[in-house]
Amino acid sequence: MQITEWDTPAAMVDLDILEANIARLQKYLDEHGVRNRPHVKTHKIPEIAHMQIRAGAVGITCQKISEAEVMAQGGIQDIFLPYNIVGAAKLERLTHLASRVRLSMTADSEFTVRGLSAAAHARGLELPVLVEFDTGGCRCGVQTPEEAFNLANLIAHSPGLRFGGLMTFPLNDNTDPFVTRAKELLGRVDIPIDIVSAGSSAQMYNVHRHPVVNEHRAGQYVYGDRRTVKSGTMSLDDCSFKIIATVVSRPTATRGILDAGSKSLSSDIGQSLEGHGQILEYPDACIYTLSEEHGHVDFSKCAKKPEIGERVTIIANHCCPANNLFNEIVAVRKNEVQVVWPVAARGTVK
Amino acid sequence: MQITEWDTPAAMVDLDILEANIARLQKYLDEHGVRNRPHVKTHKIPEIAHMQIRAGAVGITCQKISEAEVMAQGGIQDIFLPYNIVGAAKLERLTHLASRVRLSMTADSEFTVRGLSAAAHARGLELPVLVEFDTGGCRCGVQTPEEAFNLANLIAHSPGLRFGGLMTFPLNDNTDPFVTRAKELLGRVDIPIDIVSAGSSAQMYNVHRHPVVNEHRAGQYVYGDRRTVKSGTMSLDDCSFKIIATVVSRPTATRGILDAGSKSLSSDIGQSLEGHGQILEYPDACIYTLSEEHGHVDFSKCAKKPEIGERVTIIANHCCPANNLFNEIVAVRKNEVQVVWPVAARGTVK
Repeated sequence: MQITEWDTPAAMVDLDILEANIARLQKYLDEHGVRNRPHVKTHKIPEIAHMQIRAGAVGITCQKISEAEVMAQGGIQDIFLPYNIVGAAKLERLTHLASRVRLSMTADSEFTVRGLSAAAHARGLELPVLVEFDTGGCRCGVQTPEEAFNLANLIAHSPGLRFGGLMTFPLNDNTDPFVTRAKELLGRVDIPIDIVSAGSSAQMYNVHRHPVVNEHRAGQYVYGDRRTVKSGTMSLDDCSFKIIATVVSRPTATRGILDAGSKSLSSDIGQSLEGHGQILEYPDACIYTLSEEHGHVDFSKCAKKPEIGERVTIIANHCCPANNLFNEIVAVRKNEVQVVWPVAARGTVK
Repeated sequence: MQITEWDTPAAMVDLDILEANIARLQKYLDEHGVRNRPHVKTHKIPEIAHMQIRAGAVGITCQKISEAEVMAQGGIQDIFLPYNIVGAAKLERLTHLASRVRLSMTADSEFTVRGLSAAAHARGLELPVLVEFDTGGCRCGVQTPEEAFNLANLIAHSPGLRFGGLMTFPLNDNTDPFVTRAKELLGRVDIPIDIVSAGSSAQMYNVHRHPVVNEHRAGQYVYGDRRTVKSGTMSLDDCSFKIIATVVSRPTATRGILDAGSKSLSSDIGQSLEGHGQILEYPDACIYTLSEEHGHVDFSKCAKKPEIGERVTIIANHCCPANNLFNEIVAVRKNEVQVVWPVAARGTVK
């Protein structure tokens, strides 16, 4: 079946482009001796995770235990979970998961470390825990190398745990001085930093400029979206993930309404991005607003305007939440449908 | 089990409040002789739809055929689908659905009418089709009463179809003059307007100010969210739908990070709403940004600040896309878990 016969709205991935994206980043990181540990939150599909590992990734990154559980069920054996796991229910699931796959974690507080230690120790595990540090993302993470030193020290001396290194998001110029200073402090007490893990697709081809980093986590690079294009790391032609939609109304001379809204594209915007997606067939059109099941498009700048019933192809602002809205992704090669992938880890927020 | 023992992030609905919301709107619309046809896109749960019908609703509204199919499978018998259905695949499903439930439709173009007519006629159906008109929502809908007249006329003379009335979103002061003029035009050719259907939760208690309207579609009113509170039609205490989250990091003196991000709360903002949700326990806190699995909170204005591991309760900006992100909704009464509802029509974008 051709993708042109597939009903809309649908999320599709072009396999040729997907494979090229996987190969390109792997080649770059291999050339620079940096371990690749892609973040699967973008696709949430075990078969794509296996493609990434077959290409050379050392394992994967998941954001929630439930996401990691789905990937473990899909046969993935090495999972990094850079999230503060808090609370008895999750700690219990964590130890079960850690007995089935090689699991590593992060923490940014004594609270998280004590919880991990008690749970891991009770099960006779030795869980690697990296210290998360904040390079300006202003999310989680310790704020200073001194705090990183204290927490690493605590991990190294906590039963059931092993200090695994340092982790941050996003990679930027604050990364190097932070790691250098933390290494200096930890060196004094003979605690080595095995892994320095950085993340971001926007910065993925700058990793070699940060020699302190030896492992990288990129998510969006497999799919690509307007944000990664805006960041300059990918072109529109590199985007393998596309939303197909149909024009269902042309109420005025310039307005067109699509059958894809915020429940297909997500409401994510992007720094200085105009509109809610890029229509490939109408590069001058603007998806100026979204209802839940309608995309509102201004075609006034387009010389030719679409008819009702016409299909269009959209590059999303942000592929990760868009992928998460679909039950299945249609994988095509040269427009022929090859497989329909359930988004196995969709909705795994716990 | 108490909801306080339920792992986070989770979406919960308070049944006492839900029932009160359903009863209040029904009573108001009954008092004013307006038929209630709630929009189930908010909850996507057949049992809530049945509660709405048992309270007095004449049927439900769905936004996509796939959503209507799930509701039909759940035993709902009267469904209004105010969407331009375009393309052979959907038209075929539509006729199957119309042979199982009382289905009514909308159209805003000759293209849509011709498709509906051909499909319905081939199956020997007589499908009621309302003309959608635009009151300033700038989505779908004919632009003038004259266009409405022409399309109604076409529907009335199309095999397989019956003209069912007029429909708009949102209800506002443009509604009345439009309908009055359309009625005048259609009266000249003896085409009656049976139903005038308006929509919006923000305007739901203003329906009596628009005597031309005899049917109303509200969605959010069952749940409530910051948008409906902002609109003045509901209070925070009327919100039955809540996201429970846990503080997983306190990296600085004022910043707190929750385990609920845009994949739990959605990225939907709201006119002049600050932040991505209202934390009930910390009314002065601001969820100033969202990562996919983290909520970033500024607690600087709160005298008392939360500890890591503390649970918080969030009223979402927009309950509809938030509900759509969860696989299940935990229904509680006086904090005791009564039932876990699968969000049966989640992801039904087709």
